[in-house]
Amino acid sequence: MKRAVVLLSGGLDSTTTLAVAKAEGFELYALSFDYGQRHKTELDLARGNAEKFAAKKHLIINFDLREIGGSALTSDIEVPKSGVSNKDQPLTPNPQPSIPVTYVPARNTIFLSFALAWAETLEAGDIFIGANAVDYSGYPDCRPEYIQAFEYMANLATKISVEGKVKFKIHTPLIRLTKAEIIRMGTSLGVDYSFTWSCYDPIPGPQSPTPCMKCDSCMLRAKGFREAGIKDPLGVD
Amino acid sequence: MKRAVVLLSGGLDSTTTLAVAKAEGFELYALSFDYGQRHKTELDLARGNAEKFAAKKHLIINFDLREIGGSALTSDIEVPKSGVSNKDQPLTPNPQPSIPVTYVPARNTIFLSFALAWAETLEAGDIFIGANAVDYSGYPDCRPEYIQAFEYMANLATKISVEGKVKFKIHTPLIRLTKAEIIRMGTSLGVDYSFTWSCYDPIPGPQSPTPCMKCDSCMLRAKGFREAGIKDPLGVD
Repeated sequence: MKRAVVLLSGGLDSTTTLAVAKAEGFELYALSFDYGQRHKTELDLARGNAEKFAAKKHLIINFDLREIGGSALTSDIEVPKSGVSNKDQPLTPNPQPSIPVTYVPARNTIFLSFALAWAETLEAGDIFIGANAVDYSGYPDCRPEYIQAFEYMANLATKISVEGKVKFKIHTPLIRLTKAEIIRMGTSLGVDYSFTWSCYDPIPGPQSPTPCMKCDSCMLRAKGFREAGIKDPLGVD
Repeated sequence: MKRAVVLLSGGLDSTTTLAVAKAEGFELYALSFDYGQRHKTELDLARGNAEKFAAKKHLIINFDLREIGGSALTSDIEVPKSGVSNKDQPLTPNPQPSIPVTYVPARNTIFLSFALAWAETLEAGDIFIGANAVDYSGYPDCRPEYIQAFEYMANLATKISVEGKVKFKIHTPLIRLTKAEIIRMGTSLGVDYSFTWSCYDPIPGPQSPTPCMKCDSCMLRAKGFREAGIKDPLGVD
């Protein structure tokens, strides 16, 4: 059984990616990060999904990107809200003219680097990441050209690739899909989206937090479910 | 004053690299990692050298590569000793036919990824790493082709590069130098090699550890000092 390292944030995309890797027959090694993100709900959900999809191992690596800063997801910068109150209005998932402040500097590069290290130790040539370049926030490290460049670098970086034992492939099964297509695919593969988290700025609650339904990520999620014709189990309406 | 992020392990090469970046007129942001390495002496020395070369900031990021394993420097794998007892014998710095077990999976990729994140936050386009591909242990992530691939990827990965504000350059001032040339250059730039650490497998002592003088890294260092005609202040002979 071929091994794959799957980056698993606990979000909708990465959980769907885990299901895809499972369906493709890989033995799963799920990798998450506790990096000082504001919303840790996702890590609990990642644990649950790693178990549900029978990951052989789930590793959570700790480091603190707050020391580096530069993002609304790890520092005191405010998460932008487009303030869309009428869900029938056309939604523009990325209304900012440039990459929004929720971008975390070099995050996917850091995540993929740890995935590469673990993959090398496991002698696994396959790394999965739920990057998406359609219904996304315009983050540069979600685009195909970035992923290709990482893959090329990875094959020059490691002992097992240079010695010819393994050729690394970065799998991005969602990269060209709309959010609606991702949700339909995940649903067909058994993903329960109750147990995925998207909101960048959750509202604390006595039992569990509630999605704000105003940040980019909530808006993209809501648009996806609406277009897929599926009710979001986490949706507030 | 242009800012540069300098990877600083506390070893001979990275400390020399810090001195080079200083001499080139950069404002220094030194970056070290506490990643579960066996020999932490180097982190204390990194702190001292960051101060000596007046780094604006020295950041030490913590994570645990022991969870990933796969290296003699982070796990229980034995550090190989070539057992060279006669210093007049010709030394072969990398006698292994392949990359030795002291290689740490994807280490430079992880280090450079954090450097990239910090550089982006600082809007610094210049990243320095003391990679060397002459008197080295054959690690794949020290070679020029790897560094070039990382630089290419970095410029696709980040908001400030994609928006055209900064073009990242990975500086490797030592990459084509022999160890002797590195030592001569560092000496001329004010590096005090008493405060640099190379040994992979130090012998614990009551006050401070002693280099083993048998591992690859000790052998490369000893050869460098001998060829430079300079006495190693840490040398045991």
